[in-house]
Amino acid sequence: MTRPLGALLAHPLSVVTAGVDLFPEALRSQGAIVETVDWRPPAFGAPEDLAAVAADRRRVSANRTATERILAAGADLVDVRSAADALDLDRDLFLHAGPPIEFGNASGPLRGALIGAAMFEGLAADPDEAVAMLESGRIRLDPCHHHRAVGPMAGVTTASMWVSELRDPVNGGTAYCSLNEGLGKVLRYGAYSTEVIDRLRWMGEVLGPLLAAALIRSGPIDIKSILAQMLQMGDEGHNRNRAGSLMFLRDLAPTIAEAGAPADQVADVLRFLGGNEHFFLNYGMPAAKLALDAARDIPGCSVVVAMARNGTEFGIQTSGTGDAWFTGPAQTPEGLFLGGYGPQDANPDIGDSSIMETLGVGGFSMAAAPAIVRFVGGTVPDALATTRRMFRITVTENPAYAIPVLEFRGAPTGIDVLSVARTGILPQINTGMAGRVAGTGQVGAGLVKPPQECFEKALVALAALARS
Amino acid sequence: MTRPLGALLAHPLSVVTAGVDLFPEALRSQGAIVETVDWRPPAFGAPEDLAAVAADRRRVSANRTATERILAAGADLVDVRSAADALDLDRDLFLHAGPPIEFGNASGPLRGALIGAAMFEGLAADPDEAVAMLESGRIRLDPCHHHRAVGPMAGVTTASMWVSELRDPVNGGTAYCSLNEGLGKVLRYGAYSTEVIDRLRWMGEVLGPLLAAALIRSGPIDIKSILAQMLQMGDEGHNRNRAGSLMFLRDLAPTIAEAGAPADQVADVLRFLGGNEHFFLNYGMPAAKLALDAARDIPGCSVVVAMARNGTEFGIQTSGTGDAWFTGPAQTPEGLFLGGYGPQDANPDIGDSSIMETLGVGGFSMAAAPAIVRFVGGTVPDALATTRRMFRITVTENPAYAIPVLEFRGAPTGIDVLSVARTGILPQINTGMAGRVAGTGQVGAGLVKPPQECFEKALVALAALARS
Repeated sequence: MTRPLGALLAHPLSVVTAGVDLFPEALRSQGAIVETVDWRPPAFGAPEDLAAVAADRRRVSANRTATERILAAGADLVDVRSAADALDLDRDLFLHAGPPIEFGNASGPLRGALIGAAMFEGLAADPDEAVAMLESGRIRLDPCHHHRAVGPMAGVTTASMWVSELRDPVNGGTAYCSLNEGLGKVLRYGAYSTEVIDRLRWMGEVLGPLLAAALIRSGPIDIKSILAQMLQMGDEGHNRNRAGSLMFLRDLAPTIAEAGAPADQVADVLRFLGGNEHFFLNYGMPAAKLALDAARDIPGCSVVVAMARNGTEFGIQTSGTGDAWFTGPAQTPEGLFLGGYGPQDANPDIGDSSIMETLGVGGFSMAAAPAIVRFVGGTVPDALATTRRMFRITVTENPAYAIPVLEFRGAPTGIDVLSVARTGILPQINTGMAGRVAGTGQVGAGLVKPPQECFEKALVALAALARS
Repeated sequence: MTRPLGALLAHPLSVVTAGVDLFPEALRSQGAIVETVDWRPPAFGAPEDLAAVAADRRRVSANRTATERILAAGADLVDVRSAADALDLDRDLFLHAGPPIEFGNASGPLRGALIGAAMFEGLAADPDEAVAMLESGRIRLDPCHHHRAVGPMAGVTTASMWVSELRDPVNGGTAYCSLNEGLGKVLRYGAYSTEVIDRLRWMGEVLGPLLAAALIRSGPIDIKSILAQMLQMGDEGHNRNRAGSLMFLRDLAPTIAEAGAPADQVADVLRFLGGNEHFFLNYGMPAAKLALDAARDIPGCSVVVAMARNGTEFGIQTSGTGDAWFTGPAQTPEGLFLGGYGPQDANPDIGDSSIMETLGVGGFSMAAAPAIVRFVGGTVPDALATTRRMFRITVTENPAYAIPVLEFRGAPTGIDVLSVARTGILPQINTGMAGRVAGTGQVGAGLVKPPQECFEKALVALAALARS
């Protein structure tokens, strides 16, 4: 049935509009009453996929269950021991950050870290021999994430390295992470000089055992509580871990002193911990993994449970799609550079540390850490705006991670693939930058986003499952 | 010469107005061009005094000199030793916070702290004997400020207590402060039970000597640098000293371990430092005093160089008026209370710790520490607005104390008596609250201002000197 337009205009107009402002403004200028609705066309995704995921009747409650588990998760540091012990890791199996990758596709920093690890494990006498073993497959590769572990930057974790064990007393999970080496010339940034290998040996021979002994005396350390306090102290838990590292030192220093080690070893360990303001990152990351692992494998759930980069590809996993990785090319961060380095020296995005943003801290909670703009670039208003923007792609707010300057609003938590597709807002990650050339180490820190492709592929997979 | 009003109106009006909005609005509605000037009548002060101080030709450059010295001042912790040694203090001379006071006028917490100190010094066997000695004048009282020292809350400092010595390598000053006892039942809040006295003994026998030995090995600790970093880490340096206390622990822990003390003493000291998130306050305060003492005694200078309270009176000193104190009745803070305590339990404002606000941190830099509203009351927007308001009564900004959320604007520095009189804006102090009854300890924390009377009297004195 059609009605003549004249009849419509015979009475006062009352109009609801969506989209561009031109139409409502034209009407308003003629005295019509106009209600505008904040609706935009979806940024990406096939209409039938968006519709299938949006109409999936399991989705809302699945996403609620996922974020309830994330919010409830605890994280206690319970043990420190060798990766061989903790992860039942064979000496020829090397773990790395990000989604699966073959050595032939590895970028400089991952190559460098793998070479260094082969020499540290005594499998190779020099870089050439290491490369030969890695190319031939005599050293095998597997993602940390496939072993309940996470690793910052290259994330290379091998049998003789010491790792922390964290437990979630609420959901019952376990997660592991290596000990943080500090900044500069370190294995995780792809450096493998003698200094790097020697430090790893000291960490296995002195640091790890002394932390383990101290932890037995102190009892478990509540990592979630430290992370919560960090957000009150100008840290966002990814590239600012200053307060967190200090609180960790505070909690363990007394029992480090009492554990029976010689005074010079005690002093060396206290000096190492106090001199490394990123030491806590390697506790925050497994704490985040515990929370997100608790949200895995919920049918119909469109919440992201991992974002990880191997230096070549960026990969995400969602709760509703099991162990599948949705990948795209890793982007190169933009930010601030150390010393004489510049953009041409930076490797594409690398590391499992984007698990912090997946939890809702890191780049998502930059409003809590305005001083970080001096490290990763940008302005203070950008930092505040970034956190506000992340609320638009997340399911809920985490009251445990309260952001004081936003009047104690909780961190934006539970990235929803559908919200990302609808808004086109990609998760904001802040990150360290490794040198592109193996052996370089850190060159800077900056801001980066996942490629949209990861979310496009995840949407397709979620839609296929919704229809099946 | 008078002109007819008609002639004035014969041409288009161009008007400059100050004061109430009614007049410019009436003109604007008639199409006149109006420039409004943000001028208000002075809030207090006799017109001739305001004019004399404003017209003092020395004032602008004197205030500039004062704030240049404040900004340039450094603060290195160089020694820890007994007050008898450091301050050449006789056992019967007790130092206290705030302007001079006689025992008969002392409020509960100051009485309690003096009683406890008399027993700690072995001068009295019990509280009655202590009171008798204090009343008779056999124990003499003198302000900390008169001995290059500062003390938080009651501020009672006696010969056997250990104090820190700080030096300003730029202006050459020296300042002293006691060691912080922690929170709750402590001498500075007026408690004097056996637990309090025993802790003071341990601090003199174990803590002080071990800190001193560690400091010899570590070399001087840069307190100004820690204070600067605190403002990047959610501390404001008066009632939040969490990050500062942790950084102090970090800096000294290795040499505490190496100083040759038994492992259990090392662990006890590390536990005490780690368990006391206000430990750093007693380093921030003498650092502030160093900076402000450097600004003393500049003729014509209207900058405040001390704000201090003895629990009965609030006193201020200005650079241009020598050692004179300008006093008024101490106000009672409003804020949040511990356990079952309420407003009726709170003593009026007490302590030298308002030296932090005199420097430009503490209440003046609350924008750097939004989480503090959970401790002292108020809202996050209040905290931001408070710092912005303090810029209106201060001469300059201190770039060393940058406030990230205000886009790294420096802390408002150099309280100008004339600006306080003109605006009526009183300095904002945040503070601990002591129990009104001697022996109670801390009952809460809150916000408080000096009585206007202090500034009225200072203005009169500055005006008299300007005219002389």
